Amino acid sequence: MAKDFYGDLRLGILGGGQLGRMLIQEAINFNVNIHVLDPDPNAPCKRLCNQFECGALNDYDTVYNFGKDLDMITIEIEKVNVDALEALEAEGVLVYPQARVIRLIQDKGLQKQFFKQNDIPTSAFQFISSKENLASTQVALPYIQKLRKDGYDGKGVKRINTVADFEHAFEEPSIIEELVDFEKEIAVIVARNDRGDISTFPMVEMEFNPQANLVEFLIAPSTFSDEIQAKAETIAKKIANDLQIVGLLAVEMFLTKDGEILVNELAPRPHNSGHQTIEGNYTSQFAQHLRAIFNLPLGNTDTRANAIMINLLGEEGYEGLAEYEGIEEALAIEGVYVHLYGKKYTKPFRKMGHVCIIHSDRATAIDNARKIQQLIKVKA
Amino acid sequence: MAKDFYGDLRLGILGGGQLGRMLIQEAINFNVNIHVLDPDPNAPCKRLCNQFECGALNDYDTVYNFGKDLDMITIEIEKVNVDALEALEAEGVLVYPQARVIRLIQDKGLQKQFFKQNDIPTSAFQFISSKENLASTQVALPYIQKLRKDGYDGKGVKRINTVADFEHAFEEPSIIEELVDFEKEIAVIVARNDRGDISTFPMVEMEFNPQANLVEFLIAPSTFSDEIQAKAETIAKKIANDLQIVGLLAVEMFLTKDGEILVNELAPRPHNSGHQTIEGNYTSQFAQHLRAIFNLPLGNTDTRANAIMINLLGEEGYEGLAEYEGIEEALAIEGVYVHLYGKKYTKPFRKMGHVCIIHSDRATAIDNARKIQQLIKVKA
Repeated sequence: MAKDFYGDLRLGILGGGQLGRMLIQEAINFNVNIHVLDPDPNAPCKRLCNQFECGALNDYDTVYNFGKDLDMITIEIEKVNVDALEALEAEGVLVYPQARVIRLIQDKGLQKQFFKQNDIPTSAFQFISSKENLASTQVALPYIQKLRKDGYDGKGVKRINTVADFEHAFEEPSIIEELVDFEKEIAVIVARNDRGDISTFPMVEMEFNPQANLVEFLIAPSTFSDEIQAKAETIAKKIANDLQIVGLLAVEMFLTKDGEILVNELAPRPHNSGHQTIEGNYTSQFAQHLRAIFNLPLGNTDTRANAIMINLLGEEGYEGLAEYEGIEEALAIEGVYVHLYGKKYTKPFRKMGHVCIIHSDRATAIDNARKIQQLIKVKA
Repeated sequence: MAKDFYGDLRLGILGGGQLGRMLIQEAINFNVNIHVLDPDPNAPCKRLCNQFECGALNDYDTVYNFGKDLDMITIEIEKVNVDALEALEAEGVLVYPQARVIRLIQDKGLQKQFFKQNDIPTSAFQFISSKENLASTQVALPYIQKLRKDGYDGKGVKRINTVADFEHAFEEPSIIEELVDFEKEIAVIVARNDRGDISTFPMVEMEFNPQANLVEFLIAPSTFSDEIQAKAETIAKKIANDLQIVGLLAVEMFLTKDGEILVNELAPRPHNSGHQTIEGNYTSQFAQHLRAIFNLPLGNTDTRANAIMINLLGEEGYEGLAEYEGIEEALAIEGVYVHLYGKKYTKPFRKMGHVCIIHSDRATAIDNARKIQQLIKVKA
């Protein structure tokens, strides 16, 4: 950074959702001028920035014009026009994460190739260009089909169990991946600044609910062995270094039943698996992302307490102006932090907020998290 | 609160300075719509709220018109038009702290009378209406003269040592107070919600620098005896209860050399002596103020770590567009949190930001704080 500190810095954020919102909450401490681009006229960041522009993130001209008078651009979503970001980089705008990193991560196929080329452990896979190819793959059934592009929050992913599923498969370019019989889904968030400092947050575990067949909550720190945690953190650091990324990188991984770690996917930005760092760690993922892109010394990522993060999702069967139930009761429980995202409208499974629960005793934290899942409902 | 949660709530803040700014950082989690009134067109809150209005806080019409369509009003400075707030209260706008509390606290004379009437320990005092009265007071020289109204950050306070100082004394209505030979300046922040729940933050100590003759930093938690801490917290709770305040109340006190506690002054809002709660305590003073005015259960105020707060003041000899030195070096030290207030212009001693330093070891925290005082400079 040329400037000693940031009163004049114009920082653009591509995307004005909850990640941008929490990034702004932290960026306020750094005095920067925030510009936000988002297609939603009611985006959560709209009223919290120096300038809000409503426009398409995947349109070249929109992104280019948004960025051309800014000093630095970051993202809170990968689905942005990378050609425009490359043009801006060529003109001297700092783009963190770099356009080439976003381009690679936008395509799950390129991600997989990158893992292979760099000896990063990942599940066996194969590219297919259309569902016709499914009949002649080398990966054995059952397997997972993932669209190479534009998948999000479980969308763009299908499980193919038998030949009978072929006709319902995606038609678009995709990858098929060997099914991993995992013990636990885990994640490590790593930060790297331009001078090459690298730092990881402690590994977190996703707690799976077998009845509902989905991730119920996220818990940190992990209780797996130091060896497993160190291995996951080493992999995350290696990826950050191989990519030479500037900014935050979330690395989602599978821990297999025989103690192997396989990298699943990357996100080059603050991530849902790091929300608990706001209250649970000495430095939050949002503060760390800012330290990284501003080329400042990275903060201490140590854990301050057992922390659990649960997403507040729009309740099934409700769509419209959001209403929140049970928050008062939840706040009566000690160590409960509610973060609402300022979204006007709810729909089923929309991420409307999250709650962080901290406690010195891990079992109590889990009990409290389960209580809160019963208490808080987002309806319309 | 009538509403279960706050998507539609219009909250007005009188004052758009750093206290409002940090309150907004927290209010973002509660989803409320924030309206801010401040006379400074470059106020720190300007770009962080749903609506910013530039206008005089002491003007009846300005405050009344600002508030008449809001659901709730709070303050970040006491110097506001209380008549307008009373009119708004009469029309059903929730004003927290209540207009009568602000009226009382605006006048240091009424504060002193209130202490006397409610058996709250405070130094001996006497009212005077002009400096002519100084010749015939009952309080013995040397003493402190304080303007009853509009004093702020040490302004409006004079020490009168001898008869020779009479001619330089304030002419306006004031109080004279017996000089307290104190061991330490201390403060307790207390919160009370409308259902009558009361909760204090642990007592903090102001660390005095005898060379510079000013408060150097604030340190929490205190190392004075449990008995002294309990006494200070009991006094703060009694005042909150006697006032029936809704919101936060900062109680500044003197601990005398013989272990007595005397109340100095009150501030009915978040306060400089509570900034370290953001990183140092389970609930920050800003989150607690919002819980109190929204009539939610109050949060856990326990300490998470030794925390020191230092103000970043505009350097002497510099006035103009603010520039910050040494922040990068400061952030290289572990447990350092920089909060800049987004003020465009600096002048000598203007509060431009603060730094919180946390550490598990108190002596290390103090060492680090001293280092940071040397490192960070706000110039122009």
